[in-house]
Amino acid sequence: MRKATKEHRSPPAKGSEGVELDGTVAEVKRAAGMRHWVWDDVEREIINPLLERQLIVGQDVMLARLLLRKGCVVPMHSHINEQLSLIFSGALKFWIDGKELVVRSGEVLTIPPNMPHKAEALEDTTGIDVFHPPRADWINKTDSYLRK
Amino acid sequence: MRKATKEHRSPPAKGSEGVELDGTVAEVKRAAGMRHWVWDDVEREIINPLLERQLIVGQDVMLARLLLRKGCVVPMHSHINEQLSLIFSGALKFWIDGKELVVRSGEVLTIPPNMPHKAEALEDTTGIDVFHPPRADWINKTDSYLRK
Repeated sequence: MRKATKEHRSPPAKGSEGVELDGTVAEVKRAAGMRHWVWDDVEREIINPLLERQLIVGQDVMLARLLLRKGCVVPMHSHINEQLSLIFSGALKFWIDGKELVVRSGEVLTIPPNMPHKAEALEDTTGIDVFHPPRADWINKTDSYLRK
Repeated sequence: MRKATKEHRSPPAKGSEGVELDGTVAEVKRAAGMRHWVWDDVEREIINPLLERQLIVGQDVMLARLLLRKGCVVPMHSHINEQLSLIFSGALKFWIDGKELVVRSGEVLTIPPNMPHKAEALEDTTGIDVFHPPRADWINKTDSYLRK
């Protein structure tokens, strides 16, 4: 389980939307009450030698703080989740909707549900991906497309 | 309308969830296809002398980049929207769920739907609030509780 660092935490509110969830995801969502998080204390997952990830899971929204080292490639994939990619430093090249574009510090890419995309870090890149609903494959660690 | 600065924009995807929306909000959501945003080019709204705000509206998620100057008070209020407050600099004191807590740079507060909260900037503070669903009152500028 992720570490709660500040013990300001209220009883979980009820879940809401009708997205199908397996046991682990439902459990994480149930725990998503009011909570004060410190990024530096959130578990850091090494997904592959070029990719590190931390997750904060709310009821219907998930944040993933990412470090993609230069050369990190996220292969073409798609998901039901709406995605908003916020870049804080570095540069991330996307292949999406028949276009190539580079998202840099201070920029955001909004990706609708089910739109295939691929990405490559042109430099060491930090950012936060926002997903709705939370991504079951990232919570459950069944995201084998990233673990290569 | 918000300014699109990079003309990488795909046809809008269809809306999804059954939240009731008035005309303006529905229109903004319809426009929420794949899009590349530059924060510095997004319209900056002066809500009151101590509060500036920029919005990026997706289909089911909204980002609000905020500058709260020292002494800015957001009065006690609640909303149906789940909120995740990401603080990048400064310090924001919250009154929430019977507690007082201060959220600082590198920290996040997750606020479930319908949980009343008040906030005060102890220093000049920057951050991004993530909402699901997008907040109709902020899009429509009917957020009179902030405009004082």
